[in-house]
Amino acid sequence: MENRLVQGERFAFHLKKTDGATRLGEIVTPRGVIRTPAFMPVGTVATVKALYPEQVRDAGADILLGNTYHLMLRPGAERIAKLGGLHKFMRWDKPILTDSGGFQVMSLGKIRKITEEGVAFQSHLDGSRHMLSPERSIEIQCLLGADIQMQFDECIELPAERREIERAMELSLRWAERSKRAFEAQREAGGAGPGQALFGIVQGGTDAELRRRSAEALVAMDLPGYAVGGLAVGEGHEAMIATLAETLPALPGNKPRYLMGVGTPLDLIESVRLGVDMFDCVMPTRNGRHGYAFTWGGALNMRNAKHAEDMTPLDELSSCPAARDFSKAYVHHLIKSGEYLGAMILSWVNTVFYQDLMAAMRDAIANGRFDDWAAETKARIITQPAAP
Amino acid sequence: MENRLVQGERFAFHLKKTDGATRLGEIVTPRGVIRTPAFMPVGTVATVKALYPEQVRDAGADILLGNTYHLMLRPGAERIAKLGGLHKFMRWDKPILTDSGGFQVMSLGKIRKITEEGVAFQSHLDGSRHMLSPERSIEIQCLLGADIQMQFDECIELPAERREIERAMELSLRWAERSKRAFEAQREAGGAGPGQALFGIVQGGTDAELRRRSAEALVAMDLPGYAVGGLAVGEGHEAMIATLAETLPALPGNKPRYLMGVGTPLDLIESVRLGVDMFDCVMPTRNGRHGYAFTWGGALNMRNAKHAEDMTPLDELSSCPAARDFSKAYVHHLIKSGEYLGAMILSWVNTVFYQDLMAAMRDAIANGRFDDWAAETKARIITQPAAP
Repeated sequence: MENRLVQGERFAFHLKKTDGATRLGEIVTPRGVIRTPAFMPVGTVATVKALYPEQVRDAGADILLGNTYHLMLRPGAERIAKLGGLHKFMRWDKPILTDSGGFQVMSLGKIRKITEEGVAFQSHLDGSRHMLSPERSIEIQCLLGADIQMQFDECIELPAERREIERAMELSLRWAERSKRAFEAQREAGGAGPGQALFGIVQGGTDAELRRRSAEALVAMDLPGYAVGGLAVGEGHEAMIATLAETLPALPGNKPRYLMGVGTPLDLIESVRLGVDMFDCVMPTRNGRHGYAFTWGGALNMRNAKHAEDMTPLDELSSCPAARDFSKAYVHHLIKSGEYLGAMILSWVNTVFYQDLMAAMRDAIANGRFDDWAAETKARIITQPAAP
Repeated sequence: MENRLVQGERFAFHLKKTDGATRLGEIVTPRGVIRTPAFMPVGTVATVKALYPEQVRDAGADILLGNTYHLMLRPGAERIAKLGGLHKFMRWDKPILTDSGGFQVMSLGKIRKITEEGVAFQSHLDGSRHMLSPERSIEIQCLLGADIQMQFDECIELPAERREIERAMELSLRWAERSKRAFEAQREAGGAGPGQALFGIVQGGTDAELRRRSAEALVAMDLPGYAVGGLAVGEGHEAMIATLAETLPALPGNKPRYLMGVGTPLDLIESVRLGVDMFDCVMPTRNGRHGYAFTWGGALNMRNAKHAEDMTPLDELSSCPAARDFSKAYVHHLIKSGEYLGAMILSWVNTVFYQDLMAAMRDAIANGRFDDWAAETKARIITQPAAP
């Protein structure tokens, strides 16, 4: 539970097997190995909502995500550093990836202003004024002690004008250069070690040419991993998959690829098929709090009155004890009553479902039967429109 | 986890030791033994808020309390009966005590009307109209499958006019008779077994003579246990203890005595000293949700900025893992951020504290040193004004 990194261990990615575009691998960090394809539970403000850290670990998560924007405002990056770093603060000794804060500050709308320098914004908590730039974002991520850090970028909502998408993509490339220089300076100054890594973020909306230009420029920077950002922002599943299919071939095969903020089980399966290695999304926990259960028989809306007298377990096939122990009738009652335990149970069940889904994908790839597994699994679990 | 009672087992109370007025005992029920003095966590709507049932059990609780008023409205007593009873519904196989609904309907104010027959009221959930009477209250408690049931009573706020207190006390006595007849009719019809028990409730405000009259009339009904109701409703600790001291001697020594809705650790210690055997209160969980921690070093307001950079454990002396594992700084952050995990940790820590406090009292009585223990413990834990 110490925040110190093991000296000498370097960040590395090992591809263990490929099957067409689909990849099985391992990211090695001083805090542990991340089995890929990997899904990262989101711990926005230093907690995966409604879960004890032990539940996240026991679900099989090798890494989780923390949010620079939220943590810089409360409790503050300097304070977390003073207290020994984010791992120690939140009792999570495995790897942590932090986003750059870019996505959140963009969504602040009228209370933020973008310039070449960065983004000036007001806190959603108290209206206080702050600035995020590539340099400050990397400084914060180092103060938090993140094992994988993300470049500062501009992520815009879709649909958008092509020239607006291009402007944001090009700004993000300039910010990638500055993020890289800032990270290297941190390394030289001891603020980051050889086991920590900075990833670049491909932008460009759903425009294949912009995506390719973004990817090529980032690849030229020789970063240890690349994310695809700016998707799952309103373009829909088909457009997202099409964009991924056009973007991923421009990224090097020997580095991890991270699809940011995605997604539904279907999104994950189809993205892994195309060669994505890492994901994060609030869906398991947010949908859980809203009463949705991901089960091996399909997604369930536990508010639905049809569950009110159903004493069968939430999901007998789940590896989560709560899914086998608690009845649909009881969870329906808890959710209808707005009880903590309803959110606790469903967040747990869904977090385990997502980890089990990734484990099943890794097994299928290892056994050379990803396509068959995907067809079988989609037939089982895609029984309803995806939960919101 | 079956709702069926073990046939042939009868409800019984065994006094194991007394030390002055202070008592150590056991209540025997078909679902298990309740070690007294006992504190019952409150599971208002079939869940002890923010806790998994396993956490409540592992904290050492032998019994918990459910609320007739809340459960009759949602999910409904007939529905719970159809699904196999409250124990099965909420996954709690130890004893459950249910209140009669009287206390809650009285607090509805303008949307309830009291007559000799009972209380007509509107649901706080949807405004629907309902009636609670002694007969309906007992019917509901039998449908829920409660091991210990409470008579329907009228509980008034203090201060109040003596004749108003007297009127409510006398109405409660007539309702006690009707509750008893209704419970006996349920027994004859198979709705309750010999392992289930109905307790009477002494009323009478802080008036010694009214309390004595109430107690004597209830004792004449020969019920298997007696509660003291209508306290902790605004009269203050001193008046409550004084009233208890005047009331308890009027109750038989060979039956359990339950002080309803109480209280702070100080309340519990002083009431056990006077001979109370059972308690219930929302304080451990409600105060937990509001950011208060009960610790062996005194109560802490975790919102207080003095905890913001304190990485020491919440309570190293606690038997709750969360109290030893999580730092004050982290819990402060969670509570300030309104995170589920803050409420989860503090509700757990406080529930364990209350159970450990009762266990310590039982040990002290068994070892014949309750007074010494009480003096030492009060010096340790009563360091601040009680949390609200």
